[in-house]
Amino acid sequence: MTNSAKGVIFIGDGMGGRPVPELGGMTTLEAQETPALDLVAREGACGLMDPIAPGIPAGSDTAHMAILGYDPHTYYRGRGPFEAKGVGIDVQVGDVAFRCNFSTVEERRVVDRRAGRIKEGTDQLAAAISEDVPTVEDVEIIFKPSVEHRAALVLRGPGLSHEISEVDPHDPGVDYLKSHPLPGAEDPEAAEKTARVLNEFVERTHEVLEGHPVNRQRRAAGELPANIVLPRGAGTAVQLQPLSERYGLHAAMIVEVDLVRGLGQYLDMDVIKVDGATGGQDTDEMAIAAAVAAALDDHDFVLANIKAPDLGGHDGNCRMKMEAIAKVDRAVGHILDEVDFATTTIMITADHSTPCSVKDHSGDAVPVAFYGRGVRPDDVERYGERACGKGIMGHLRGMEVMHVLTNMMGRAEKFGA
Amino acid sequence: MTNSAKGVIFIGDGMGGRPVPELGGMTTLEAQETPALDLVAREGACGLMDPIAPGIPAGSDTAHMAILGYDPHTYYRGRGPFEAKGVGIDVQVGDVAFRCNFSTVEERRVVDRRAGRIKEGTDQLAAAISEDVPTVEDVEIIFKPSVEHRAALVLRGPGLSHEISEVDPHDPGVDYLKSHPLPGAEDPEAAEKTARVLNEFVERTHEVLEGHPVNRQRRAAGELPANIVLPRGAGTAVQLQPLSERYGLHAAMIVEVDLVRGLGQYLDMDVIKVDGATGGQDTDEMAIAAAVAAALDDHDFVLANIKAPDLGGHDGNCRMKMEAIAKVDRAVGHILDEVDFATTTIMITADHSTPCSVKDHSGDAVPVAFYGRGVRPDDVERYGERACGKGIMGHLRGMEVMHVLTNMMGRAEKFGA
Repeated sequence: MTNSAKGVIFIGDGMGGRPVPELGGMTTLEAQETPALDLVAREGACGLMDPIAPGIPAGSDTAHMAILGYDPHTYYRGRGPFEAKGVGIDVQVGDVAFRCNFSTVEERRVVDRRAGRIKEGTDQLAAAISEDVPTVEDVEIIFKPSVEHRAALVLRGPGLSHEISEVDPHDPGVDYLKSHPLPGAEDPEAAEKTARVLNEFVERTHEVLEGHPVNRQRRAAGELPANIVLPRGAGTAVQLQPLSERYGLHAAMIVEVDLVRGLGQYLDMDVIKVDGATGGQDTDEMAIAAAVAAALDDHDFVLANIKAPDLGGHDGNCRMKMEAIAKVDRAVGHILDEVDFATTTIMITADHSTPCSVKDHSGDAVPVAFYGRGVRPDDVERYGERACGKGIMGHLRGMEVMHVLTNMMGRAEKFGA
Repeated sequence: MTNSAKGVIFIGDGMGGRPVPELGGMTTLEAQETPALDLVAREGACGLMDPIAPGIPAGSDTAHMAILGYDPHTYYRGRGPFEAKGVGIDVQVGDVAFRCNFSTVEERRVVDRRAGRIKEGTDQLAAAISEDVPTVEDVEIIFKPSVEHRAALVLRGPGLSHEISEVDPHDPGVDYLKSHPLPGAEDPEAAEKTARVLNEFVERTHEVLEGHPVNRQRRAAGELPANIVLPRGAGTAVQLQPLSERYGLHAAMIVEVDLVRGLGQYLDMDVIKVDGATGGQDTDEMAIAAAVAAALDDHDFVLANIKAPDLGGHDGNCRMKMEAIAKVDRAVGHILDEVDFATTTIMITADHSTPCSVKDHSGDAVPVAFYGRGVRPDDVERYGERACGKGIMGHLRGMEVMHVLTNMMGRAEKFGA
């Protein structure tokens, strides 16, 4: 039954939206000219997708899990493990992982959760922590910096639990918190131990960082010192079946966000980094598109994501979001030029809506369009929320789209005889 | 709540398709003139149906199970029990059943899996097996011939399991296989015993058949001898609630395929055989239609299936598939003439798509149209994949359609007060 057909899922992060009065009641996606996306819609099969279920605002992690066919209701135990994988920590089943910020505190009061958006020196700060705090009790400490003020922490040892409260107060001007077991934790003793280890780790980072040369320099330059690490988003690492095993597809991922990249690594996909893919508004979308086309040479399936549309949504900046959508359109246009769609099927979608009016993820369905091999084109003419809503694919769930795509590729397994 | 309203599900087997370039981008169903189906669509309520779920290619067995409301994810344990029921074996819960071929071997090498498509004499061959091999160990052997080279085998006894490997190599020119327990079988001891019994049965059939008069005649006539039975598709018989109990409907089934007929018998439906219903391209569709109309006189519900469209799909022969669709249309036309749709609701659909370009079942949604009693007609004008995709019924699952149909019939039970 297997053949050599290829598949692509191309995601404009947060690209779905809601009507904007200033755009004549159109969404940013409807208002922006998108010739490539429109071609896909016009010659493809369209619909809407609820990443999780109607009305549920999805995170980037849960949405990508669902789109790849891993039910987040069953498998999602916090983003920590994906963050940690994404920064290159070899997370193991049973680890408890956290995302962290380098922050600025005075005594216990949080002055800045992002330590003045520190850009340089975090490598040295992290190295100092790893050297001075290799373990707490019998728990191994694995700590790695990510971009800017971000970092990841993994606790590895016997009897740990993610059911603990936050250290990071998520607001400046207040004291950071002592972690404690969540009420109703399944294993209160493990949660007690994990909270104790975490609290000790946080205090130790403060001791290590407070007088570190990097921070002395920052103070001298009038910058805020990165004098503590504040973890958040505890998550327990679970076993996920590698994507290649699940679908019989040699798979690659080309994304800009550590969190999603971590998921790809978790699923044993080839995670390809692209020069110029910044994850920002300035990202090189053509480099991303070229990488997708190249990856198809030696992979059966590629999932790609351009982050920029989500940023404009979060900022409530419709013009910025429209420019980002234009970037997605140019990238898709390049892929349309470079790839043979007699043997390839592409799905264009978003992982969730991030309406400018909401400035956060919303639970509004996102458009989806399938184009290329095995597709039954409908008469939708434009790529957009309301146009695609009239397409032949109807309303899909995130959990269903890999089945739909592999069916079009001719690589789905028959159930029954 | 019950009344005397009637219901029909009429299935064009594998009737769904994909666009065909030679047909101007239409599917076979869209390209073929279908006045009766179009009337149903025009005066009825249309939609699309995913027999199992979006993108999942369904088998005929799993699709019909789902359409009748029995979740194949829960109840499907292989096709063997349905095949065995279909040839008239009274399968019991716990039996392990197989479909079989009369085949030709030289030593262990398979010369022809279908014994030269033997048409006559299999009754005598089967009788010889039944006489000489009534049991193996403490396991009762029940063996019955079907059409041409086909047959069914049931093993009945304590401690059996369907989790065993195949005997039939599925390809000619290679040796037939020794069955063994599948790795990870739930009950390895039962699987071990079942494999042992099955292997012994196969050897015994070879001994019985090799010198049988039917085969001596075949050799004399230059035909391949049917000198062994090769079982495949092991399945354990599970308990399924009779359809009449489930829905309070006295139900009949008029289908051409043993596999589906076996499901009907399994569900305690009245399985009606129709003279002239060959299961082939030459089937007498008018006889089938007349049988459906007649069955409605003394049944509340009839499921009917014409096999022919699926054959053209498997053969990759679009013209043949279109002729078969014309047959389905004529049959539906006759039913429209004969049945009172003030008191009857009919649903016209397919059990799955079998696109000519795929030559196998695909996971593409199939059209559905409801007509008659209790229907809210929409403005769809033609019966076809894309036309019906715009109908009021949206996307249904196979598991949902009996509820939809019995609701239109006024025979669905209220849930709640």
